[in-house]
Amino acid sequence: MTLEKKNMAGRILLLLLCMNAVSFIVNAVPQTCPADLGGKCAEDDDWEGEGTSSKNPLAYKWYNAEEEILGKKMKDWLRFSVAFWHTFRGTGADPFGAPTKYWPWEDGTNSIAMAKRRMRANFEFINKLGVDRWCFHDRDIAPDGKTLEEANANLDEVVALAKELQGDKIRPLWGTAQLFMHPRYMHGGATSSEVGVYAYAAAQVKKAMEVTHYLGGENYVFWGGREGYQSLLNTDMERELDHLARFLEAAVAYKKKIGFNGTLLIEPKPQEPTKHQYDWDAATTANFLRKYGLLGEFKLNIECNHATLSGHSCHHDLETARINGLLGNIDANTGDPQIGWDTDQFMTDIGEATMVMLSVIRNGGLAPGGFNFDAKLRRESTDVEDLFIAHISGMDTLARGLRNAAKLIEDGSLVELVRKRYSSFDTEIGAEIEAGKADFEMLEKLAKEWGEPKVASAKQELAEMIFQSAL
Amino acid sequence: MTLEKKNMAGRILLLLLCMNAVSFIVNAVPQTCPADLGGKCAEDDDWEGEGTSSKNPLAYKWYNAEEEILGKKMKDWLRFSVAFWHTFRGTGADPFGAPTKYWPWEDGTNSIAMAKRRMRANFEFINKLGVDRWCFHDRDIAPDGKTLEEANANLDEVVALAKELQGDKIRPLWGTAQLFMHPRYMHGGATSSEVGVYAYAAAQVKKAMEVTHYLGGENYVFWGGREGYQSLLNTDMERELDHLARFLEAAVAYKKKIGFNGTLLIEPKPQEPTKHQYDWDAATTANFLRKYGLLGEFKLNIECNHATLSGHSCHHDLETARINGLLGNIDANTGDPQIGWDTDQFMTDIGEATMVMLSVIRNGGLAPGGFNFDAKLRRESTDVEDLFIAHISGMDTLARGLRNAAKLIEDGSLVELVRKRYSSFDTEIGAEIEAGKADFEMLEKLAKEWGEPKVASAKQELAEMIFQSAL
Amino acid sequence: MTLEKKNMAGRILLLLLCMNAVSFIVNAVPQTCPADLGGKCAEDDDWEGEGTSSKNPLAYKWYNAEEEILGKKMKDWLRFSVAFWHTFRGTGADPFGAPTKYWPWEDGTNSIAMAKRRMRANFEFINKLGVDRWCFHDRDIAPDGKTLEEANANLDEVVALAKELQGDKIRPLWGTAQLFMHPRYMHGGATSSEVGVYAYAAAQVKKAMEVTHYLGGENYVFWGGREGYQSLLNTDMERELDHLARFLEAAVAYKKKIGFNGTLLIEPKPQEPTKHQYDWDAATTANFLRKYGLLGEFKLNIECNHATLSGHSCHHDLETARINGLLGNIDANTGDPQIGWDTDQFMTDIGEATMVMLSVIRNGGLAPGGFNFDAKLRRESTDVEDLFIAHISGMDTLARGLRNAAKLIEDGSLVELVRKRYSSFDTEIGAEIEAGKADFEMLEKLAKEWGEPKVASAKQELAEMIFQSAL
Amino acid sequence: MTLEKKNMAGRILLLLLCMNAVSFIVNAVPQTCPADLGGKCAEDDDWEGEGTSSKNPLAYKWYNAEEEILGKKMKDWLRFSVAFWHTFRGTGADPFGAPTKYWPWEDGTNSIAMAKRRMRANFEFINKLGVDRWCFHDRDIAPDGKTLEEANANLDEVVALAKELQGDKIRPLWGTAQLFMHPRYMHGGATSSEVGVYAYAAAQVKKAMEVTHYLGGENYVFWGGREGYQSLLNTDMERELDHLARFLEAAVAYKKKIGFNGTLLIEPKPQEPTKHQYDWDAATTANFLRKYGLLGEFKLNIECNHATLSGHSCHHDLETARINGLLGNIDANTGDPQIGWDTDQFMTDIGEATMVMLSVIRNGGLAPGGFNFDAKLRRESTDVEDLFIAHISGMDTLARGLRNAAKLIEDGSLVELVRKRYSSFDTEIGAEIEAGKADFEMLEKLAKEWGEPKVASAKQELAEMIFQSAL
Repeated sequence: MTLEKKNMAGRILLLLLCMNAVSFIVNAVPQTCPADLGGKCAEDDDWEGEGTSSKNPLAYKWYNAEEEILGKKMKDWLRFSVAFWHTFRGTGADPFGAPTKYWPWEDGTNSIAMAKRRMRANFEFINKLGVDRWCFHDRDIAPDGKTLEEANANLDEVVALAKELQGDKIRPLWGTAQLFMHPRYMHGGATSSEVGVYAYAAAQVKKAMEVTHYLGGENYVFWGGREGYQSLLNTDMERELDHLARFLEAAVAYKKKIGFNGTLLIEPKPQEPTKHQYDWDAATTANFLRKYGLLGEFKLNIECNHATLSGHSCHHDLETARINGLLGNIDANTGDPQIGWDTDQFMTDIGEATMVMLSVIRNGGLAPGGFNFDAKLRRESTDVEDLFIAHISGMDTLARGLRNAAKLIEDGSLVELVRKRYSSFDTEIGAEIEAGKADFEMLEKLAKEWGEPKVASAKQELAEMIFQSAL
Repeated sequence: MTLEKKNMAGRILLLLLCMNAVSFIVNAVPQTCPADLGGKCAEDDDWEGEGTSSKNPLAYKWYNAEEEILGKKMKDWLRFSVAFWHTFRGTGADPFGAPTKYWPWEDGTNSIAMAKRRMRANFEFINKLGVDRWCFHDRDIAPDGKTLEEANANLDEVVALAKELQGDKIRPLWGTAQLFMHPRYMHGGATSSEVGVYAYAAAQVKKAMEVTHYLGGENYVFWGGREGYQSLLNTDMERELDHLARFLEAAVAYKKKIGFNGTLLIEPKPQEPTKHQYDWDAATTANFLRKYGLLGEFKLNIECNHATLSGHSCHHDLETARINGLLGNIDANTGDPQIGWDTDQFMTDIGEATMVMLSVIRNGGLAPGGFNFDAKLRRESTDVEDLFIAHISGMDTLARGLRNAAKLIEDGSLVELVRKRYSSFDTEIGAEIEAGKADFEMLEKLAKEWGEPKVASAKQELAEMIFQSAL
Repeated sequence: MTLEKKNMAGRILLLLLCMNAVSFIVNAVPQTCPADLGGKCAEDDDWEGEGTSSKNPLAYKWYNAEEEILGKKMKDWLRFSVAFWHTFRGTGADPFGAPTKYWPWEDGTNSIAMAKRRMRANFEFINKLGVDRWCFHDRDIAPDGKTLEEANANLDEVVALAKELQGDKIRPLWGTAQLFMHPRYMHGGATSSEVGVYAYAAAQVKKAMEVTHYLGGENYVFWGGREGYQSLLNTDMERELDHLARFLEAAVAYKKKIGFNGTLLIEPKPQEPTKHQYDWDAATTANFLRKYGLLGEFKLNIECNHATLSGHSCHHDLETARINGLLGNIDANTGDPQIGWDTDQFMTDIGEATMVMLSVIRNGGLAPGGFNFDAKLRRESTDVEDLFIAHISGMDTLARGLRNAAKLIEDGSLVELVRKRYSSFDTEIGAEIEAGKADFEMLEKLAKEWGEPKVASAKQELAEMIFQSAL
Repeated sequence: MTLEKKNMAGRILLLLLCMNAVSFIVNAVPQTCPADLGGKCAEDDDWEGEGTSSKNPLAYKWYNAEEEILGKKMKDWLRFSVAFWHTFRGTGADPFGAPTKYWPWEDGTNSIAMAKRRMRANFEFINKLGVDRWCFHDRDIAPDGKTLEEANANLDEVVALAKELQGDKIRPLWGTAQLFMHPRYMHGGATSSEVGVYAYAAAQVKKAMEVTHYLGGENYVFWGGREGYQSLLNTDMERELDHLARFLEAAVAYKKKIGFNGTLLIEPKPQEPTKHQYDWDAATTANFLRKYGLLGEFKLNIECNHATLSGHSCHHDLETARINGLLGNIDANTGDPQIGWDTDQFMTDIGEATMVMLSVIRNGGLAPGGFNFDAKLRRESTDVEDLFIAHISGMDTLARGLRNAAKLIEDGSLVELVRKRYSSFDTEIGAEIEAGKADFEMLEKLAKEWGEPKVASAKQELAEMIFQSAL
């Protein structure tokens, strides 16, 4: 299997995964079968991207990795990453349902051998998709241990294989430590009420940072899924926040000590699993970083579904992060506007994708961050090919968003509409105000001189029309 | 001013409105000016629809009234209607703000003369847009009176003019009585705790039905904005619902008596202005109609923003109405997914529009219902041309939705995907079950024979990909 | 262990459970310890309810089973039931976290032996709480099997023990079949796209009804957790609803066949796990029952947290059920007003409890339904005593609600306020209207005679003040 | 009318307002009549607070101004304030309804004479309630003018009367400028796209600060109702936020210049009227203040209904403000958990009030801030006595909350439960961590030494039980 053949945009080979399946122990009760392909796997057509008229669900229609848009290759704007956990550890279980996915490469165990086989599947998948990055939690890729030492040894063994499989081209977009699944973390990691848990969490992050560094990871993420509270009645929020700051300070120090130059990222989420997570949204997290003097050391990983759960559009939280100098990475997914929990769906809304890409372009791209597909198949999607369809659909949606955003920028009407709205500030008086030289007495004098101000239409419907025309 | 020139689809003349403005008393503090047109009104280009590459904000890009889609003209699928209240009585006021719109044809009064001038503006607008229908509340089009008699006389005078201005082509899509603005209706109309208000509401609906009938209206709408409660503590919900049923029965009787053949429509909304409206959503209203034996007499007017406020997608409530045999009309607007009140925005989301049109096509169209633009300019949009831009954008969005839906249907993949999902019921056993002939004992026997059932992937991501490819 | 000693209201013995623990295999990593009891279990004080000044967390302060309120014993108004699944199968797992509960009686297996030991714990718990009812799913109480036959045999074995342990006093409030956990049900049970699943679901319900009947159950519940859709794009909603109706018809027929006289209950929930559940809320379910002619055969089991997720207050959905003649049972729990998923918390809000009890009293009680504690410990509550504290707190809250509701009714001010609001209908004209004899012409005549109606204040703040004073 | 007689807690005289009514021009179509008092006003009973068993709706049952709780008088903990706008300018209008309130003292004009008569009514009301503070917007208390000069002159005239009526005892809790109602502010004040509006807003705030200072106001509030956006498509959010910072800097400078020592308060609100307000919640506003170096100059005015609209409990946003050293004032109201807009109801939930008071006590009180009743009668509450009932109910609710909070604190169980949860940090290691001396290497070493940490139950249900027992 030669990697260079896969570098072409849009090439997907489903064959190998399907063939390999025979040699795996298939735990297939209930057995699932591809609904629309007559029970057979796709054939070995070495097809590439097929353009927007293609009806092949396994071909890119809009993503063309090497194509240049606004002076940069699509792959460099988009820097796609596969999320190991959703794609390779997602079982389809939900609070009311048992697992539904019985991937052919799984043997039903959580052994080291299985972890390695799974890691091979991961890289096969990444190669077939033609992307260069992946993201992982420590406990996703290797089995936990009875002791920290055992867990670390397990991790080392699997990581060594991942290093080898990465080759020259593939790197982690980011790594992270799973500080939410094990019952020890039920009250939090850095914000646990138990000092022993705080120490354990530190040890786990220490190791995960080392491993991310070893694999050439470009970023390291903190998602505080349990760093929050279920009830204020039994919680000392102030003390917990202080602990969190101490923890992150120690992480910064350790990063520097080991020479890891990747960006540290905090991923805001408002709630779930806790009633209230401390990193509620971009603004809340920015406030935390400023309060504790951590502003220069962290950026944010904005997840669209988290943004909407916090009451903002995804675009809003991206812009808030950007304006605060904190936009570091995007977890590319989407939620359901009528659902109050994290559905982690693949983004398929081209309007939303276009707005996301407008922010990314304004940010000059995301590098060293990128787009991580923190998105999962629906529980009821149980074919191997669904994994491909979902990722291709997500990549094409963002590629389409990029093309649309470029069209809007090149057209210029929307930018011009905004520029004109504020043109009364592009004046001498405007400059004085913006320089902080206009006091209330001067402003009152002007207000009296000028009389009733003229106020122009905001032209929102025109802006929406221009935007929609680019889709 | 020759109307016949305007009758062509897609023709928009802004000139006359702008010119006419000079002769109106302009109440222009603060004066608003077109932000993007250099302060000038558009020139008298007699252009028509210009196709999807047009950058002219006043041209249709997707709507082409006479073009046939799936065997029916676009104008017959869409049956657009202008909502008099938003377009001609919307002032831009909100709970925190005074009016912002100072249309050139308004003189600042609520006189009969002003009502007539406004009605002329309405028909000029309708003609310029090239649509054939309009919707109104009694109190929107004519001033209220000190007595019912005076109010009715005012209404008659304005309606006579409307009848004349309608000519041969234009008709009300529907009329309705405004039973929510006047303080007498603060506890409801049909569900008011005061018997005098119940009688007054009946008298007002009686007159509004007569007037709608006289104008050739095709439907009559009941929106129960105040038919609900603010608190259950002071409310006898059961008695109020009984009153509502009695009221609607009387309306049905009167409709028949006067020979009005239009459809009676109920418009569900979950809340706002009341905490809880009795016609919460399509299913709740269907339950009410069934309970009181009114099912054959009413259909539903589904408003997208109301559907989303009740926790459903617009598509869901349309399908619920359709499945219950109740889909009669659509109030074409959209809400903001992060906002908990009715924003009544013009729909610009092409995905949503495509789903809406899928339901309409399945319903065999909406006639004698149609699409009423129950949508308003943002408060900050204050140019006359914004009225045109907003309607053109809304019409083009639905036209685009219709084209996409037709593409999906003609392509057939999505329909086929659904058909295959349920194909196990297209069997002898399936038919027995669907005919109600399969009892539990027989089913248990089958279950034992068959063993563990095979369950196929739901292919949701594939369905989404097919859907998105049609946009 | 003598049961008769436990029959007194309010008696809680923690000792035996604690002592028994030694003989169980304790899977205690991480070990949990009672935070507030110095690591020791409570002593064997045979105390009873201690009144409202008690600081003992294991004493009833408001619930007094035998006390008469409004002519009925508290235990007959409240008819409390322990939910087997939350209390004995809840592990503390959530979508982001592994189990946290390591109850001393659990051995980490899902064996028949373990099922029996768990059933003994269940009855010990019920006896200690002093309640008379319990609720269960088939798969909660006994292990599933490789075949339906095996599953049924397992169930029979455990049910025989339950029958014995129930003795003369304890009965199931209701039983139900678990049609949502197993992957075969991922597309639904009665509404699955696979005919084999439909049959399997029927077989499972058949058996669960038999078992419920055998145990003397008073009701049988249908909760359609998977009877809904994730996306309308791949769903034939109309066909699925037809299947659901056929399924319920067959259930009614079978109930009659076996002579089961218990009430069939449908439990509405708007969503979760599906995006949209067909039994969205009370009104939606009522519409379904009416449409398919099932109205006389079913009542509703209203769950407070489900009501609030559907956008209603719990009180609203109870009243909607009651007015439609459908209020059959209450799943007594509460949600978090800021959380968009089912938190199934024990109700502790006395205002909410008072409103719930006002509905129950108006309904003349719930029998043969009752209050099932479909509520679970927070994931972080890991002491055995937390199970007791939570239930005692929930029972006391509803008992307090009952006392408050009785106070309100006996005081009469609130009832009188409502009566007066509608008194204008307690007239000759009002009676004619309510009898359906007032047509629009007569009403118009009255409206003209009466002139502008007088409209009184709704006195909502006064109603709230009266209500709050009773708390 | 002697004021000293009114100083006693709980004294309410409705008589004078009722009697005075005769001399006012009553605009009473439709006339409203007291539903529950037989059409008559209350008699001149000079009653005082009557204790918790009173059934008099016009008597305080829980508030006793001079009573000491936790070492401070109730009136000093609570520092109640009447909001002029809701109480004296609230008309009952909503987006779908015309005004419903026809107070006897109103003459239907917006004249200076009417403004003065209204101001007298305000102080009569304040005196009768027995509170010492009021809050106002500039444009609420005096008519706007055609020019800024005229508006300022109008304001001066009414303020002079207010100064006189205040006497020695009454003071503004705070004043503010109304920068949202006039159409000139449709794009914002400080964040308007028009420089002329920025200047006008500055002039208006300048005057409002002067007037607040002149009246002895203790605080000055900024509520940025229009400082936000409707759509990001036409908005330069970064530039707008910079303008807002410049504006607030100028406000700080002017405050110092005129020697006003009151606290400057920002009032967060997530949205409404805009889609997104820049001062979304406490954390967002704290981030803004930190970013622009304004932290020492401002505190926050937390409004409970705003907190819940932003997805937090009121308690959460109070605690967030407190922890950031920013809790300055509370707008005491409540929302409806099922409603997505600001209902500004009077708080009547005693659980919520108890949590609010726990925060206030932890904050050492609110002075120089207090509790402003930013709450309004329901639209349907139209009797003068409803104004009294609503305020008395709100005051009694918070008084009851204070009593309950004190009970909880004096009891100590809840505080102790929290203390014990974190006791593992009250150790040498804990102290090192909290001092920032524990690096990852040290922590890893500890984690390995300690092995699997013990994690205690969070005892949430116990905490809730303790809390509820105090209600």
